[in-house]
Amino acid sequence: MQKVTIIGSGSWATALVKIFSESNLSVGWLVRDAEGASFRRMNGYNPRYLGFARFKNHLVEPTTDINQALQDSSLAVFITPSAYLMNTAKVIDRDVLKEIQIAVSIKGFIPGTGWIPNVYLQKQFEPQRPVAVLAGPCHAEEVASGKPTWLTVSCLSSPIAEKISRAINVPYIKTIINNDPAGVEYSAILKNIIGIASGIALGLNYGQNFQAVLVSNAMKETKRFLHEVDPAERELCNSTYFGDLLVTAYSNYSRNHTLGKLVGRGINVNTATQAMEMIAEGFHASRELEFLLKKININLPVFNAVYRVLHQHASPAREFALLEKHLC
Amino acid sequence: MQKVTIIGSGSWATALVKIFSESNLSVGWLVRDAEGASFRRMNGYNPRYLGFARFKNHLVEPTTDINQALQDSSLAVFITPSAYLMNTAKVIDRDVLKEIQIAVSIKGFIPGTGWIPNVYLQKQFEPQRPVAVLAGPCHAEEVASGKPTWLTVSCLSSPIAEKISRAINVPYIKTIINNDPAGVEYSAILKNIIGIASGIALGLNYGQNFQAVLVSNAMKETKRFLHEVDPAERELCNSTYFGDLLVTAYSNYSRNHTLGKLVGRGINVNTATQAMEMIAEGFHASRELEFLLKKININLPVFNAVYRVLHQHASPAREFALLEKHLC
Repeated sequence: MQKVTIIGSGSWATALVKIFSESNLSVGWLVRDAEGASFRRMNGYNPRYLGFARFKNHLVEPTTDINQALQDSSLAVFITPSAYLMNTAKVIDRDVLKEIQIAVSIKGFIPGTGWIPNVYLQKQFEPQRPVAVLAGPCHAEEVASGKPTWLTVSCLSSPIAEKISRAINVPYIKTIINNDPAGVEYSAILKNIIGIASGIALGLNYGQNFQAVLVSNAMKETKRFLHEVDPAERELCNSTYFGDLLVTAYSNYSRNHTLGKLVGRGINVNTATQAMEMIAEGFHASRELEFLLKKININLPVFNAVYRVLHQHASPAREFALLEKHLC
Repeated sequence: MQKVTIIGSGSWATALVKIFSESNLSVGWLVRDAEGASFRRMNGYNPRYLGFARFKNHLVEPTTDINQALQDSSLAVFITPSAYLMNTAKVIDRDVLKEIQIAVSIKGFIPGTGWIPNVYLQKQFEPQRPVAVLAGPCHAEEVASGKPTWLTVSCLSSPIAEKISRAINVPYIKTIINNDPAGVEYSAILKNIIGIASGIALGLNYGQNFQAVLVSNAMKETKRFLHEVDPAERELCNSTYFGDLLVTAYSNYSRNHTLGKLVGRGINVNTATQAMEMIAEGFHASRELEFLLKKININLPVFNAVYRVLHQHASPAREFALLEKHLC
């Protein structure tokens, strides 16, 4: 593998640019505007996100031209917000992506479809090789500052997962190979909603005793959900699943957690989402998940409560007082 | 139930005195010295632990006389450090405890035996009714300040668990009935060692990404251990098991966490244990667990690493660098 293309420019995309460039790969980076592209090329950092993280700029080619970003690339990683993935994918020539290995690292459903990102990309591009999923457990902030971190590379084809894993070659990253992309994506999406739940609890001034009960109930609900939508033998205690959940639920960095905390403190949901510069994926995921839960006809009290608070104007205090009765 | 006896005077014992007295039960409280007894009787708080927590002192009778403490009692709860349980139990008339329901809330092995507390008390007193176990997930500090908390009441007899549960009648406590006292005690013991591991990681300046991997691996090791020593169908995602684990692993209050952090920062283990006023149960549990693991011939990397750091003078930094290779 010689060149990787990063499609997205948030903090996690920036962290992956750092990882791949430090692994001595060329990195084509699709960014929004020409000014941003030239700034990054000149200065070797993203002024908007993770400004303290330097990447090897002689290896990185930021560009606004998707074809240029994908030229000669072996791996295209989609890392846009889930809400923008469809629009981004639609402008890409399907023939170009037939040859390139596709990966995705997006923690949200495709709006209005209930699809997880790897399934959508598989449908959209019908690539020769199955789409891979890159996942946590990790905060971009800690990756950017070189803290020891485990990344999951999941693909239905183990050789592909191993190939991507070998391309990541920096001392602070260890990779976990996994062949359950659907389970990994569903868990990654759900954990953002759990991060919001956890933030709401903090905002409402619940303590650590409650937090532990909330998170363990959320684990149980995640287990039940996965069993319904994608039954398979999986060890949920693996870092890939519950580790990723914990990193968000007990986080100082998570935007989802921050959103929840603001809402729990009594800030109006619209004001709170507008106040945040980067999208909190769990906000949209909560609505999409609720449709899915209705469809498969199961109740998951923690997720239902977050939905009602975020999307149905329910009072966080009242909703969490009701939720208490369902926890065990 | 009219009277409960609390045998122990640490912070968790103090929190239970508060809970039972606020539930309008008489509380016989075995304390160490006459001066301490009269102070508590007069002032309605424990000057050594949780000094901010008031109990209803007209209902509480602190005494140094075990027979007086047990007189007319329906329930005797043992809450000493595990190291002192044998000595405390030996001076109690076996006939007296034959009639009284025994419960225990101790998170350590009986030294040199590998026994969990409920099994030891069952052997020692051969009571008419099975011993019950009171467990978390909870910090005494949050119970004392009235934060919403779930307590587990576990007993092989469900009617007994329900009876004890009904006796706990304060608005901030919800109870979880469980009939797996062995699983509950083993998990409670192991989570203290995980709390130390988590503290060591913090002391060594690992971040939240590592913490999540450490804790999820520790969950998996706990699962494996329980499967070996007491195979049974249990939902480990229940608050009683993993919730209790989380409350310690991600804690600001836990003594085990604090001990780990000191050791991780480079403080000598002896100095660190001596510096702590209350015993960190995980310290002794780590040694006892290691004997047990040798006996049943399994390796649990997280628990093994804590053992070597605490009891074999291993360098925390080197031990955790080695541990990194075993985590996934």
